[in-house]
Amino acid sequence: MEKLRPRTLSGFMELLPAPQMQLERMMEILRETYALYGFTPLDTPAVESAEILLAKGGGETEKQIYRFQKGDSDLALRFDLTVPLAKYVALHAGELAFPFRRYQIGKVYRGERAQRGRFREFYQADIDIIGDGKLDILNEAEIPSIIYTIFRRFGLTRFVIRVNNRKLLNGFYAMLDLSDRSADIMRTVDKLDKIGADKVRTILLEDNGLTEAQADEILQFISITGSNAEVLSRLVTWRGKNELFDLGLEELTAVTKHLSAFGVPEENFAVDLTIARGLDYYTGTVYETTLLDHPEIGSVCSGGRYDNLAEYYTDRQLPGVGISIGLTRLFYVLGEQQMLNPDLPTAPADCLLLPMTEDFSAAVRLATQLRGTGIRTQIYAEQKKFKAKLSYADKLGIPYAVFLGEDEIARGLCSVKDLRTGEQVSLPPAEAIALMQKGVAALQTGSVIRETM
Amino acid sequence: MEKLRPRTLSGFMELLPAPQMQLERMMEILRETYALYGFTPLDTPAVESAEILLAKGGGETEKQIYRFQKGDSDLALRFDLTVPLAKYVALHAGELAFPFRRYQIGKVYRGERAQRGRFREFYQADIDIIGDGKLDILNEAEIPSIIYTIFRRFGLTRFVIRVNNRKLLNGFYAMLDLSDRSADIMRTVDKLDKIGADKVRTILLEDNGLTEAQADEILQFISITGSNAEVLSRLVTWRGKNELFDLGLEELTAVTKHLSAFGVPEENFAVDLTIARGLDYYTGTVYETTLLDHPEIGSVCSGGRYDNLAEYYTDRQLPGVGISIGLTRLFYVLGEQQMLNPDLPTAPADCLLLPMTEDFSAAVRLATQLRGTGIRTQIYAEQKKFKAKLSYADKLGIPYAVFLGEDEIARGLCSVKDLRTGEQVSLPPAEAIALMQKGVAALQTGSVIRETM
Repeated sequence: MEKLRPRTLSGFMELLPAPQMQLERMMEILRETYALYGFTPLDTPAVESAEILLAKGGGETEKQIYRFQKGDSDLALRFDLTVPLAKYVALHAGELAFPFRRYQIGKVYRGERAQRGRFREFYQADIDIIGDGKLDILNEAEIPSIIYTIFRRFGLTRFVIRVNNRKLLNGFYAMLDLSDRSADIMRTVDKLDKIGADKVRTILLEDNGLTEAQADEILQFISITGSNAEVLSRLVTWRGKNELFDLGLEELTAVTKHLSAFGVPEENFAVDLTIARGLDYYTGTVYETTLLDHPEIGSVCSGGRYDNLAEYYTDRQLPGVGISIGLTRLFYVLGEQQMLNPDLPTAPADCLLLPMTEDFSAAVRLATQLRGTGIRTQIYAEQKKFKAKLSYADKLGIPYAVFLGEDEIARGLCSVKDLRTGEQVSLPPAEAIALMQKGVAALQTGSVIRETM
Repeated sequence: MEKLRPRTLSGFMELLPAPQMQLERMMEILRETYALYGFTPLDTPAVESAEILLAKGGGETEKQIYRFQKGDSDLALRFDLTVPLAKYVALHAGELAFPFRRYQIGKVYRGERAQRGRFREFYQADIDIIGDGKLDILNEAEIPSIIYTIFRRFGLTRFVIRVNNRKLLNGFYAMLDLSDRSADIMRTVDKLDKIGADKVRTILLEDNGLTEAQADEILQFISITGSNAEVLSRLVTWRGKNELFDLGLEELTAVTKHLSAFGVPEENFAVDLTIARGLDYYTGTVYETTLLDHPEIGSVCSGGRYDNLAEYYTDRQLPGVGISIGLTRLFYVLGEQQMLNPDLPTAPADCLLLPMTEDFSAAVRLATQLRGTGIRTQIYAEQKKFKAKLSYADKLGIPYAVFLGEDEIARGLCSVKDLRTGEQVSLPPAEAIALMQKGVAALQTGSVIRETM
């Protein structure tokens, strides 16, 4: 029979077992932590009506979307988790309790030009809190505090969650009579890190058509740096000139205060007046998260406050705040940067049980006993040379081999070999279990991510 | 703005938070149990090249598949997890260790005619063990023993895993000189439960063209019932007439013996000579699993032994054994039959923390403390009437409310209200934590599925 060359589509991540195990560990931390903060898991379909997904319209999205017909239906793969959430909340609003807090970890699809580190199928890990009409500002601090907790649980310390406020920005531009050009200006300002203040000034003057005075005031504004308290106190200069600005400053001050109360240390969050998030549906606090040692990869976790989650589907006003981790991309970058801790076990089992008798009954019973205590056990039943069996365990990184021969069975023992040290002992099952449980727990103590100095 | 009516595609399951929580609990049991038996998680793309997915061809699959173009690519959504596994193993064979044991819980897509209980997007939860050239028979017993463990952990007791062997069947039909008609005959025999022995006999004679003697011998064969030992001993009658039959009998006997060693009680597995699994790629043991009280829904978990997993992609012989739980359908049926235990908590939080002061700092610190001990905590920060706050907790089924007012803060206490009993006590945080931990643990003791008598 002619064979077809097996292949996986480019831009679609498909991991070998060991890295997959590391990704699963990150997902488990996400699920656990989101749950700890009172978020409920949701799982919406990956396929939706194209009309629903494209309600907002817009060029880039429409070009990238995977869209297809099936029978009479015009279908598409979701390109984010926010639009399906909006649909879900609009559709089920009567059956939900607000504030509605949900997390969703799911694959989304974008037919981008394939390039290194860009994926066409990738996981997003989102949390959102949706209010009914109103939503307290505390939520805008809690959301980044959850990201802080997750990143620390991943093992990251060298990251900063950058926080800004769209009301503050919009109020500021209103003061300068630049409301109609604020979107352009924010796009220019966003380039500050990349091109520097001089070039930003040139673009503001030449392309955005600002006066020198306007450009200078903007540069003065965005060059405010220092501790969060310092930044906030410098902003007070502009207070009293525009209501929206004052409200934004009040919100930013509250979020900063609450973030401290949530235990987020100052080195992990910064008021940063240059970030704006392009999307025009953010209306309050906005977030971006950067890895200090890898600023080049941009934000790995972004979001913000919005006033109308589901405006395309319902008249009901549903304000909310949310944030999204680009999990597949983050995982890819961590791998590229050698930051995935290689000491954490990725073996599919804690123990490879080798029956040394023709009758497997005793081995099967021992396996059941081991599994009953939580030891992940594989029985190796294949007819292979002893050396091949041990090299199988080695290849997979299984930490323990357990041998069960006639002699052990007769004496009510089993032989446990620590495959890292080579040490072997014969013990009653209960002691063997205690030994392996201790060893396996010790292997699990590291974190998924290891920062290199 | 004109609103678009929000909707979810028919045939695509989208759950409300409470049932979603129950489904998540089942998935967690699946992940934990599969891992306990030494299976590694895999996650292949939901989209593959259409050519790869359709390598085998075949009418029904091709009609049901979601297939579409993007740029020059001919793409399709996977319709099962077996074809992607075959591709994965063929593609990565050099980097895997065999036997390769993997589990995958993932969504698959079939554009079937939408009808009640039939889904177009649904989860399958698969395990497979792939050998390199050979695979020991023990694996064919271990696979159903894992299903037994999972179903018991779900809370099911009234189910039977039916086991048969294709070598036994093929050998039997060879004895009767009916090898060329065996597929037709098996399809007829498969209807025994539905139409009865007389009608099966009529079809065998009239449609399948058998002689009276052949039909009688088949009916005699498939009418063998009794304990597993009885069935196996009745099969001995035919031994010595066909090598394949003898080998099948040997395998079936070994699987039966090993299943006992794995601790699967006789009431949960049965040698059943009528099951065959339609697919012609099964070559040894085959399984079907039925719920005793709901035989009408057919098999909820099926699989078997095959000799050539990846024959369309590689010359390498990769025999294996696998089984698949139709999770979405099973979950749907359990819901319809009122078998999902309503006593298990589906709340997104264990505790709703109500700050009774204007300054939330103390509440935020207490929330952090509670979360640090594993208590899933939501701070309720909205400005609502006290009664509305409690009715929010009620609606979600959150078991505890914690109040923190000036008085409590001053005295270093918090007030815990058990929302089921109405009992309220003021305690230091450590004691409040112990109280809630105990209460939450007690709520978790039931199983996901509750069988009604």
